[in-house]
Amino acid sequence: MAKRSLLIGVDIGGTKTAVIASQKPPATIDRMEFPTRPERGAEPALRLIKEGINDLLSKRGLERTTIRAIGVSCGGPLDRIRGVIQAPPNLSTWVDIPIKAILEEEFETRCHVENDANAGAVAEHRFGAGRGCRNMIFITMGTGFGAGIITEGHLYRGANDMAGEIGHVRLTRSGPIGYYKAGSVEGWISGGGIAQVAPLAVATGRKRGETTALAEHLRHGKPITARDVALAARNGDAVASRIIHSTGRRLGQVLAILVDVLNPERIVIGGLAIRLGDALLGPARKVIQGEALAPSATICEVVPAALDERIGDVAALCVAMGL
Amino acid sequence: MAKRSLLIGVDIGGTKTAVIASQKPPATIDRMEFPTRPERGAEPALRLIKEGINDLLSKRGLERTTIRAIGVSCGGPLDRIRGVIQAPPNLSTWVDIPIKAILEEEFETRCHVENDANAGAVAEHRFGAGRGCRNMIFITMGTGFGAGIITEGHLYRGANDMAGEIGHVRLTRSGPIGYYKAGSVEGWISGGGIAQVAPLAVATGRKRGETTALAEHLRHGKPITARDVALAARNGDAVASRIIHSTGRRLGQVLAILVDVLNPERIVIGGLAIRLGDALLGPARKVIQGEALAPSATICEVVPAALDERIGDVAALCVAMGL
Repeated sequence: MAKRSLLIGVDIGGTKTAVIASQKPPATIDRMEFPTRPERGAEPALRLIKEGINDLLSKRGLERTTIRAIGVSCGGPLDRIRGVIQAPPNLSTWVDIPIKAILEEEFETRCHVENDANAGAVAEHRFGAGRGCRNMIFITMGTGFGAGIITEGHLYRGANDMAGEIGHVRLTRSGPIGYYKAGSVEGWISGGGIAQVAPLAVATGRKRGETTALAEHLRHGKPITARDVALAARNGDAVASRIIHSTGRRLGQVLAILVDVLNPERIVIGGLAIRLGDALLGPARKVIQGEALAPSATICEVVPAALDERIGDVAALCVAMGL
Repeated sequence: MAKRSLLIGVDIGGTKTAVIASQKPPATIDRMEFPTRPERGAEPALRLIKEGINDLLSKRGLERTTIRAIGVSCGGPLDRIRGVIQAPPNLSTWVDIPIKAILEEEFETRCHVENDANAGAVAEHRFGAGRGCRNMIFITMGTGFGAGIITEGHLYRGANDMAGEIGHVRLTRSGPIGYYKAGSVEGWISGGGIAQVAPLAVATGRKRGETTALAEHLRHGKPITARDVALAARNGDAVASRIIHSTGRRLGQVLAILVDVLNPERIVIGGLAIRLGDALLGPARKVIQGEALAPSATICEVVPAALDERIGDVAALCVAMGL
């Protein structure tokens, strides 16, 4: 392999961390992953990241000098320029971890760091459902809710890398809590939000005499996850379908704000939207058409992310490419 | 004067239209204005615009060939590329007026057309309170409420020139009407919105036993304008001050959304904010600090527009410059 031709992506999530090798993204040569286990602190995971990169190299008999750059994709807040992870909510023990310096010293190469919503936006724009768009918004809708914004073909980061924090916007005066705020977008429309509203929906269903598979979870003292709701809805569960429908309508309200303010050609939604599909996006699209200005709403497509499970890998590789 | 060195700005508003000549904006050589009188249709105003440009030329003994370009700044909706005004709310009789073609034919020069919020954003960014900013939002807060967005030093127009329509965003489920929508940003926070909420504030004041100069207007069957409220507040009127304070808090809610989503260095507010100053912006700034994410809120300045009464003139000249 030619010198300095290998890109290494490191996708650090609250649940798992993946290390990916590529010569020409989005194609990958190899990958490995391990549980992040943030409760143990950053040290063990950092060691596993280094070992993972070394393993990927040695499996193919490659020298470190073949690495062109390393890209780290990770939840914010982080200091992108200095390359420091600053205790994101899903990695609360990772306090001021200078991951750029650590990896640059270890592998004697450049390392870039970017928040996962921005990296995902570039990945979908370059290789996924946002191809060919000049103005696009990528929404991550998983445990949290965030956005990466592409304007005029380029990632828009804002004055101090904080743009796209739509999950923090207040949708109602009170409501489920997300991003430390009651009634926020992340409170209403995320995996965490669905877990909060589901017990209420089950109680309402009970009053109406509806049986729902979700009641079982509560009976066993288990939290209801977005995954549970998706599965139940697919089996025709009315309560679960209603949760997804109302989450879709809330999603439409938020997207209508983005449509009126940013007038994007396309909104690409990852995470839960991929699993829930039109059950979620149908109601969202309808609200956008009613709520946003017609000329903007008409031209804006709302679609699920196309890179699917691979988005984290490709996003980290886009960071390695320097975005 | 050198051939093709003169810029002509045409600022068309619902109340008045101004024609401005300049060789080096923001300095102007001369200007004239006349009432737009949209109730008479576009024809008389178009004739006066042409006469106005000819008068400015002949007063200085200049030929038409000295005109480098004409810039028209006007409320939207409009077709910027074709240069057609499409019945904006404040010029509802101006249905599909091809002003670009009309002026290009008459003066044998290029004519550019841009909506006034975008033109104002560029004017404040280049010559006013937004100088030196890479990421800035300009808010027009007059009869209506709109925004012009500067990202990475350039005007951001969106996919089909509709970006910045924050006035259309819903703030509450019901409320004063603006932009054809109850509870919208324009309904709550604009001259039109203040006129709608003022009678309620007077009634509340009466219940509390407060006397207010604004009651006089209602007694004579006159609407209360934002100007009336500003004057009364300056004279210590408690009811008027409360209207401005609560409008400021609503403004803060909207700006907090823009701060979280766009992370601008500065928000520059024209129109009513210039007249009301800190009585309006003080409460707005406080809400932003409480509502938006700290790293974004801390670095974002909220200031009144600096070009003051001249903003329309300079905005139209920026359009003539090709923005």
